[in-house]
Amino acid sequence: MRGKIYIIGAGPGSPDLLTLRAARLLGRAQVVLHDDLVPAEVLQLVPATAEIVNVGKRCGRRDISQEKIHALMIWHSQNGRDVLRLKSGDPAIFGRLGEELDALRQAGVEFEVVPGVTAASASAAAAELSLTDRRTASNVVFLTAHNARNQPLPAGSLGPENTTYVVYMPGPDYGKTARNLIRAGLDSGTPCTLVSNAGRAYQQVCRTSLADLRFAAGIIPPALLIIGRVAQPVHRKAEAEVFPVLQETRSNFELPLSSGD
Amino acid sequence: MRGKIYIIGAGPGSPDLLTLRAARLLGRAQVVLHDDLVPAEVLQLVPATAEIVNVGKRCGRRDISQEKIHALMIWHSQNGRDVLRLKSGDPAIFGRLGEELDALRQAGVEFEVVPGVTAASASAAAAELSLTDRRTASNVVFLTAHNARNQPLPAGSLGPENTTYVVYMPGPDYGKTARNLIRAGLDSGTPCTLVSNAGRAYQQVCRTSLADLRFAAGIIPPALLIIGRVAQPVHRKAEAEVFPVLQETRSNFELPLSSGD
Repeated sequence: MRGKIYIIGAGPGSPDLLTLRAARLLGRAQVVLHDDLVPAEVLQLVPATAEIVNVGKRCGRRDISQEKIHALMIWHSQNGRDVLRLKSGDPAIFGRLGEELDALRQAGVEFEVVPGVTAASASAAAAELSLTDRRTASNVVFLTAHNARNQPLPAGSLGPENTTYVVYMPGPDYGKTARNLIRAGLDSGTPCTLVSNAGRAYQQVCRTSLADLRFAAGIIPPALLIIGRVAQPVHRKAEAEVFPVLQETRSNFELPLSSGD
Repeated sequence: MRGKIYIIGAGPGSPDLLTLRAARLLGRAQVVLHDDLVPAEVLQLVPATAEIVNVGKRCGRRDISQEKIHALMIWHSQNGRDVLRLKSGDPAIFGRLGEELDALRQAGVEFEVVPGVTAASASAAAAELSLTDRRTASNVVFLTAHNARNQPLPAGSLGPENTTYVVYMPGPDYGKTARNLIRAGLDSGTPCTLVSNAGRAYQQVCRTSLADLRFAAGIIPPALLIIGRVAQPVHRKAEAEVFPVLQETRSNFELPLSSGD
C-alpha cells in the first residue's frame, strides 16, 4: 500500500501559528521533508520515531535539487510511508508548489495540500497594519525582490499610490531592492515596513521609507517588506508606553522618513 | 483594569484551519465579536460563559455600523473584559483591519493582531494549485470584484498572462465579474477556478475560463476566484479515480473551456 503525501504550510515560524490540522499531522508523522526556514520548535512536534530530512537549498547544500525532492517524496510514498512535505508560510505562495504537484500527479501518488499562514499576513500582524484598506489600498501585490528587477511594477487602477506591495525575500541587500523598486516606478518617499521573524520572540519591525531602506542592513532574514500608504507610521500610544519592556526581546523602531533619495 | 483586544483571523471556516494561537484564545474567551462568515463550528470552541455577538453586516443587519463595532470593542475593554474580534480569513486582507486599529489606537486600548489563513491560500489548497509559479506566474494580485470594475488591471512586468489574479467576493453575479475583468484587459479564454467553502466538507471547485464563468451560477458564496495560467486544468490521475467518492460530499468539476465569449 502506498503512502499519502501532505504538502503542508508550516506558517511563519512560531509553532502556535501552525494550523490545528498541520499540528495534528505533525504529531503522527512518519517522514518529514522540510525547508530550511521551518524552525526546530516546529519540528519538535514530530514523534521521535519519524525520519526528518532538511531538503532546504540554502547553507550551500545546492546538491539537493528540486527533482531530488520529488524523487524522495515519491520513493517514500511507494514504500508505504506517509510523507509530510513541510514548507514555511503557505505552500501556494512562492513555495514551488506547482512543480511538486506536477511531479506527484505524474507519479500518480495520492496527495493533499494543507494551507498555512503566509509571511505577508504574519508580518502585517506583527507590524500592526492592514495590507488592504478601502481608504488607501484597494489591492495588494505579492512579488519577490527578483521580480522587482524588471519594470514596470504592477499597479492597480488608481495607480501605485493606492496599491500595497509585499516583497518576499527582499534581502540581503535592502538598498538594492529599494533602488530597483524606485526604478520600477515607486516614489522614493513611499513608506515601507520591514519585518523580520514575524510572530517570533525576537521579531524586528523597522518603519522607514524606500529612500532610507538602505539603512536597514541590521535586519536579519527571513524578512518581508511591506510598501505603500498602509505602512505609514502612526502614533502608537500603547506601544510608546510599553516600549521599554518590548526593547528587551523585540525591536520596533522607525528610521527617519525623508522625501527623497 | 482594562481588557485587551485580540483581532483574530479565524481562517477560511474549517475549525482545524484555525491556528493554535487562535484556538487557545477562543478556549478562554470572555467576549467574542464575530463576522457573519465565522461558522458555528468555530464558535463552539468558546466557553459557554462567554458573550458572543454577531457584528456581521450581512443578512439585512445594516444597523451595525463600523463605528458601533469600534465602540463595542472599546466599551468591553474599558469594563475590564478581554475581547476577541473574530474575522474570517486573515484580518489584514480585505478585513477592515486598518479602520479598527485606528479606532483602538485613538482610544489607547491594548490590542494584538493574530494572523490567519487567508481565503486565497485555502482556495489554492482546495483546488490543488499554486498561486505563484516561477514558470508562469511571477506575482499574484489580490483584489475584490468591486475593484475589477475600474480598468486597467494591475499586471506584472511580463504582462497579465504572467500574473495570477485572486478575486475576493467575486459573486453573486460571476458573469458580471468576468465581463468586468475582460473589459479590464484579461483575455476571455484565461483559465480560472472558482472555489466555494474551501477546506470544508462541502467545498466546491469549478474549473473554467473567464468566458464561461457565467455558467457557474450554482456555486454558493462564500467563494473566491483564481485567474491565470496557474488555474489551467491538468490531468488529475488520483482525482479521477476517487471522483465517485468525492461526489457524495464535494463537487469538483470542469466547465467547457472555450477560446472566446
